[in-house]
Amino acid sequence: MAYPGYGGYGGQMPGMPMQGAPMGAPLARGYPPQYGAYPGTFAAPPAQDPMWSYFTAIAGQDGEVDAEELQRCLTQTGISGTYMPFSLETCRIMIAMLDRDYSGKMGFAEFKELFTALNGWKQNFMMVDRDNSGTVEPHELSQSISNLGYRLSPQALGCIISRFSRGGKIYFDDYVACCVKLRAVTETFRRRDAMQQGAVNFQYDDFIMCTMSI
Amino acid sequence: MAYPGYGGYGGQMPGMPMQGAPMGAPLARGYPPQYGAYPGTFAAPPAQDPMWSYFTAIAGQDGEVDAEELQRCLTQTGISGTYMPFSLETCRIMIAMLDRDYSGKMGFAEFKELFTALNGWKQNFMMVDRDNSGTVEPHELSQSISNLGYRLSPQALGCIISRFSRGGKIYFDDYVACCVKLRAVTETFRRRDAMQQGAVNFQYDDFIMCTMSI
Repeated sequence: MAYPGYGGYGGQMPGMPMQGAPMGAPLARGYPPQYGAYPGTFAAPPAQDPMWSYFTAIAGQDGEVDAEELQRCLTQTGISGTYMPFSLETCRIMIAMLDRDYSGKMGFAEFKELFTALNGWKQNFMMVDRDNSGTVEPHELSQSISNLGYRLSPQALGCIISRFSRGGKIYFDDYVACCVKLRAVTETFRRRDAMQQGAVNFQYDDFIMCTMSI
Repeated sequence: MAYPGYGGYGGQMPGMPMQGAPMGAPLARGYPPQYGAYPGTFAAPPAQDPMWSYFTAIAGQDGEVDAEELQRCLTQTGISGTYMPFSLETCRIMIAMLDRDYSGKMGFAEFKELFTALNGWKQNFMMVDRDNSGTVEPHELSQSISNLGYRLSPQALGCIISRFSRGGKIYFDDYVACCVKLRAVTETFRRRDAMQQGAVNFQYDDFIMCTMSI
């Protein structure tokens, strides 16, 4: 799966409050700047990487995993901690986020990158979910999205909240699905926004590919 | 929930092969024409409508249902037949398809419209799934999408197949999720394509609303 020169997620390092774009300096185009790959992420040879064994046990000879394999893999690594394991739907969105060739699968490099992003989102979620209830409030999701560097209208935030909440709360699995999807659609948009002006002309077929794959 | 003057789904009547757009007359913009509301759909007063009791039992006083209520409601009506009941994720997409005010809920009129569309998709699925196995092949999904009036590139069809298949097969739940989503994103696009030219200029915030809500 091709995945050139990419590594940011929502414009900040995992788990850290957003740096470099103070609230007084709004981003005209609404989405956070793109960062390079996280330094050192792929420094260790796979064989010495503790995550390699999890990955290879699932991926098999082709070295790639699909959504169901990813779900098993993430469950085994215990990344969800005390929260519920990720749903298949969320795993599908995770694959779609990194799947530039629309193969529906991901390799080890993408898996590592996903893991880094997941750890960041988990830390963000835990910072908000102080009583460890497994859910956060709608306004806390809005704040978290803002902390990740996105500048969205109240209407856009409202529709995100309505889509990812259940019974007025946002569960960890849905929080991560929201973060993954928001990053993926932003990257989709950014790649087409050559002038970085916050506007893109979509052909119908391309729009269908972008929206149906995530 | 506002839902003005809408009733088509993928450009054909439920369960019927596409009429009015023969294969020899390709649609330049790639998506099927919009139809008016199905005649007679809302003719009966709700109290005499056999579906009204299902709906009101779930919706309660506010007269609207959210995704979890919709899932229970659809399960009770038995619309899935011998197939597995719809997943919560698919129910969320169903709500998003008809939810113009981004409330995350739907009223009785939208529920009826959804039911009509669901019956159509179910008939389409059953026509392809002749051995009643509950799954169809990827090329059959492509053919079905084409029968619904969509003219998509092989690349777009490939990414849809990769997103909605499991182990190389498409299950009924995912088939419906695919049809619902395809109709919803097409309507989203069509509403902005004032000249019906198959191209739309999206602002980032609007793109986020369109993609995150479905």
